[in-house]
Amino acid sequence: METHFQKELEELKENLLTMAALVEEAIRDAVQSLVKRDSDLAQKTFQFEDRINKLEIAIEDMCLKLLALRQPMAVDLRFITSAMKIVTDLERMGDQAVNIAERATALNQEPQLKPYIDIPKMAEIAQSMVKDVLDAFVNSNSKLARSVCERDDMVDGLNDQVFRELLTFMMSDPQTITRAVHLMIVCRCLERIADHATNIAEDVIFLVDGRVIKHHADAKKEDEGRNIL
Amino acid sequence: METHFQKELEELKENLLTMAALVEEAIRDAVQSLVKRDSDLAQKTFQFEDRINKLEIAIEDMCLKLLALRQPMAVDLRFITSAMKIVTDLERMGDQAVNIAERATALNQEPQLKPYIDIPKMAEIAQSMVKDVLDAFVNSNSKLARSVCERDDMVDGLNDQVFRELLTFMMSDPQTITRAVHLMIVCRCLERIADHATNIAEDVIFLVDGRVIKHHADAKKEDEGRNIL
Repeated sequence: METHFQKELEELKENLLTMAALVEEAIRDAVQSLVKRDSDLAQKTFQFEDRINKLEIAIEDMCLKLLALRQPMAVDLRFITSAMKIVTDLERMGDQAVNIAERATALNQEPQLKPYIDIPKMAEIAQSMVKDVLDAFVNSNSKLARSVCERDDMVDGLNDQVFRELLTFMMSDPQTITRAVHLMIVCRCLERIADHATNIAEDVIFLVDGRVIKHHADAKKEDEGRNIL
Repeated sequence: METHFQKELEELKENLLTMAALVEEAIRDAVQSLVKRDSDLAQKTFQFEDRINKLEIAIEDMCLKLLALRQPMAVDLRFITSAMKIVTDLERMGDQAVNIAERATALNQEPQLKPYIDIPKMAEIAQSMVKDVLDAFVNSNSKLARSVCERDDMVDGLNDQVFRELLTFMMSDPQTITRAVHLMIVCRCLERIADHATNIAEDVIFLVDGRVIKHHADAKKEDEGRNIL
């Protein structure tokens, strides 16, 4: 029979998945507002942000109550403290989605600089990372978490590529600078979302496999960041 | 008389201050290696990183043990869970210092693009933010935490300024692009360090004054980020 505590943990998991789904939608709408040149979609992102922020506070409260009243041990303790860190990462991803929506709104008022191909690709991967890393967390699936870490490389690669392309635009025509900078920031935001997902993934691997891969992976991470803004 | 639990809390506070001091030193050495064109100093940053990472794990373990064995309530519970979030922020600041040291090492192999004036200023403010926000946390000083939030604006302003200046370099002479991009990244790293400090400061204010300023300050934050990469 399920205990009351187990029910509360299930509720916590559901709330985390809901928050992740909101973040995913916020990213999708922000990037689609850019791709479809539809600033109304950007407005939707701002609305999501409010709900994301409220959920952050609600989940943190829930975690604190579980810690105080249930005094969980071992695995459950680690799960709840990880959840508290994860909501912080999710909230910061939501902030990045808002940044993207703002840039999209500005860009939609100017002629389009270039067809957006790699940016929606980056966004799609980043969204999948958000979804999968939360699934990995609530289901203790370290294999899925590892696949999230791997996808971070793809996002970094695309970011590199777009960055170079935009630099070329800027150099050949100073009139493109403002738009190119906005687009660089959009990429940078997507890259940071992917970084947050990777941070969570590392925690999930630690939680499930009980070993710290975080600082073993650091040398690799530094390499990846070398050519990118 | 001081209880055993209070002693453990003091020890936790000391460890947090030690970790913050290491992060501060890592930032200082990384930026000084750029300013003094001394790549040996950059090497010191890499050594700090190792110690920072080990302290992160040690402090997290300490927090988990306190939660499991002491089952703290109310204020102490909030303090310990906040400490767990803070070490994550500190560790990420350490990563940023490493990024700066890497860029410095690359830049030291080329002729200097421009005198470095605003970058050491940004670094100094960012270091003071790291120091003060940890002092604010361990001493429950919300006034000091607020002053940290205010300094974030100064860092953002300097970042804006350097960014524009570097863009001008890039536009007038394509040969400066690589170096200008490296310097943009250095600024971006300092700006992110300041962001982490601000995130901690917001938590301290919440902890001490018991109210969420985090999401009230968001509109302001978005404005600040508007012109910056």
